[in-house]
Amino acid sequence: MIRKNRLFTPGPTQLLPSAQLAMAAATMHHRTAEFRALYSKVLADLKTFVGSKNDVVMFTASGTGAMEAAVSNLTSPGDKVLVVTAGKFGERWESLAKAYGCQVDSVRAAYGETVSPEQVKAALKPDHVALYMQASESSTGVRHDVEGIARLLKGTTTLLVVDSITGLGTTKFDVDGWGIDVIIGGSQKAVMIPPGLAYCAVSDRAWQRMESTKNPRYYFDLRKERKNGAKGESSYTPSTALVAALGAALDYIREQGGGDLATGSDLLIRNAETAAAMTRAAAQALGLKLFAASSPGAALTAITSPEGVDSSDIVKAFRNHFGAVVANGQGEMKGQLFRIAHLGFYDYLDTIAIIGALENVLAGVGRKVELGAGLKAAQQVYAQSSASKATA
Amino acid sequence: MIRKNRLFTPGPTQLLPSAQLAMAAATMHHRTAEFRALYSKVLADLKTFVGSKNDVVMFTASGTGAMEAAVSNLTSPGDKVLVVTAGKFGERWESLAKAYGCQVDSVRAAYGETVSPEQVKAALKPDHVALYMQASESSTGVRHDVEGIARLLKGTTTLLVVDSITGLGTTKFDVDGWGIDVIIGGSQKAVMIPPGLAYCAVSDRAWQRMESTKNPRYYFDLRKERKNGAKGESSYTPSTALVAALGAALDYIREQGGGDLATGSDLLIRNAETAAAMTRAAAQALGLKLFAASSPGAALTAITSPEGVDSSDIVKAFRNHFGAVVANGQGEMKGQLFRIAHLGFYDYLDTIAIIGALENVLAGVGRKVELGAGLKAAQQVYAQSSASKATA
Repeated sequence: MIRKNRLFTPGPTQLLPSAQLAMAAATMHHRTAEFRALYSKVLADLKTFVGSKNDVVMFTASGTGAMEAAVSNLTSPGDKVLVVTAGKFGERWESLAKAYGCQVDSVRAAYGETVSPEQVKAALKPDHVALYMQASESSTGVRHDVEGIARLLKGTTTLLVVDSITGLGTTKFDVDGWGIDVIIGGSQKAVMIPPGLAYCAVSDRAWQRMESTKNPRYYFDLRKERKNGAKGESSYTPSTALVAALGAALDYIREQGGGDLATGSDLLIRNAETAAAMTRAAAQALGLKLFAASSPGAALTAITSPEGVDSSDIVKAFRNHFGAVVANGQGEMKGQLFRIAHLGFYDYLDTIAIIGALENVLAGVGRKVELGAGLKAAQQVYAQSSASKATA
Repeated sequence: MIRKNRLFTPGPTQLLPSAQLAMAAATMHHRTAEFRALYSKVLADLKTFVGSKNDVVMFTASGTGAMEAAVSNLTSPGDKVLVVTAGKFGERWESLAKAYGCQVDSVRAAYGETVSPEQVKAALKPDHVALYMQASESSTGVRHDVEGIARLLKGTTTLLVVDSITGLGTTKFDVDGWGIDVIIGGSQKAVMIPPGLAYCAVSDRAWQRMESTKNPRYYFDLRKERKNGAKGESSYTPSTALVAALGAALDYIREQGGGDLATGSDLLIRNAETAAAMTRAAAQALGLKLFAASSPGAALTAITSPEGVDSSDIVKAFRNHFGAVVANGQGEMKGQLFRIAHLGFYDYLDTIAIIGALENVLAGVGRKVELGAGLKAAQQVYAQSSASKATA
């Protein structure tokens, strides 16, 4: 059969066609009233999408750029910080904090596991100026307990910084209620557009902290971006095409919510949860093990490669036979697992389709598979979900 | 008459349609053989476009990101640097170097003027670790004497860093022969695609310098990007869509050069030079003054607003009557001048057209204009140029 190139990777994710077209057609200059109106609308919509009253700032960069901003703006050399890490992105927080001269304490869990609030409680000290963590660790598929960890920080001066690059649009956060000081997202994730924009919502106490911190920052200066953002501008030439795409994507999410962006954003989370539940059930029905056994998130499902099978062969088979791009393990995890994304623009048909492909791929790498068993399990999950009832 | 929205701004510039379509159609994941091949080709093509044997690295960021990289990677806190400044982008070098704790000496000229090598010679000290300058100061339209200044640095340990964001594709550089240690470009300029990618070519002695410099860098770490670039990868998720667009644009420049990218790149420079010469002649024939009187570059023409006329009214008239977006002055220069771009995707028809619009706009703001005088002067320049002969 013919093959369509389709991304099932946890970023870049599948692209929204109306956003692709908006991107191609965008010919705006960034210092015009037309662009200012778009930029202001996108920043306001991102607040709704994030679910926070805090000001949102945006950078032309990958998500790592906003992570760097959360380190360089909130710390001074020598500051003590606490990092929660159980994967490649947790390790990125450690590297970033060290690059900016911080003393880094880490709370660690094995790849595929989650760090518990109890572990964090034992490690947290009053002189930790910030705690850095992931909401969703994209390298393992684990969801960390942001709410539980946030509760520990109440009444302390430790700022809570959450890389939610694959958490937004897949997990419900009460950003302001829980007290998340910085929550970070990226364009190539649940918002369905190509990579190149990063954004974050920043709390009052984080803004205050920046008045005294001493690490250098220029391109990723949060206060400068906030000041210019209030005028509908970015400090430096923004990726105008991607901003147009993001505007179109947020409009789509609003439409999905019947004209209400907050409703559409919640629906997107439930959509990812349903796709993830279907995929997990299918994998287990096919005798596979989830890599994130105890706390799998809805952004992606990480599946442990069957014994004796290199996951690189599974990834190749998906591509070569079906045009479907799934992700291998990262770093030391390469060969051990593969990852199927659910965040953003994946619907029921995409989910059923990739599960069908999974059954074939497993048979192809010599695994004994009852064809249809994974699909049946997925169907049962869907039939019992609120998703099926909502549209009945 | 109907109005088409057309950018005559020195970045973003007019977009190449094949690049817009490549951008919209790009659905690659960045960790695939297909994308690695594209990325490697783009990096190799950029070396040819820049005209250097030095390795090129690319960042998902505006040009300012690569400027920051040239400061954070090449200096340590307390280092003395020399900045050549005669406009808003020169001032950006000063701010950047200060943000990274450098002691900044500046060689300054008034807006619209150029800094001479003699001035630089008088200010240069053996302990300046780097000299930062623009090739083309986009805020005033001035072209600085990169070759003359480079000559002063021969035999010294001062690194030469040239922001050539509007210089590349508009000025011929002998990057390796003159000894430019870092030369910086951006996507939304002569390479005809939207903003969001910055690139730079870095010399051996600049790579060596980075082994001992102490300023923090993470997202803009040049050595990490170089190492990953050699494998066809970027350190962090790149703007895949913009990389696809850049690939298409470099292919277009190659085609224009009859299948040779270096020839196409030279042709692009001569193209901008011809468009700039036509525009300057037209402006002068219409009794206008060039803002960059002594050393106007080919990236753009900055024209002083006629006495008693706010250039904001000229910018508005271009937009409202003709859909043409020209740039106002930046910062304190707002209201005093307007800027018409020539870098990148502007041909003979575009150039004649904007000059026609200029005559009408001037008449509209109450200036006495002999309609056709500017056009005639432009035609004469074109007729005498090698451009007209090359296609005769």
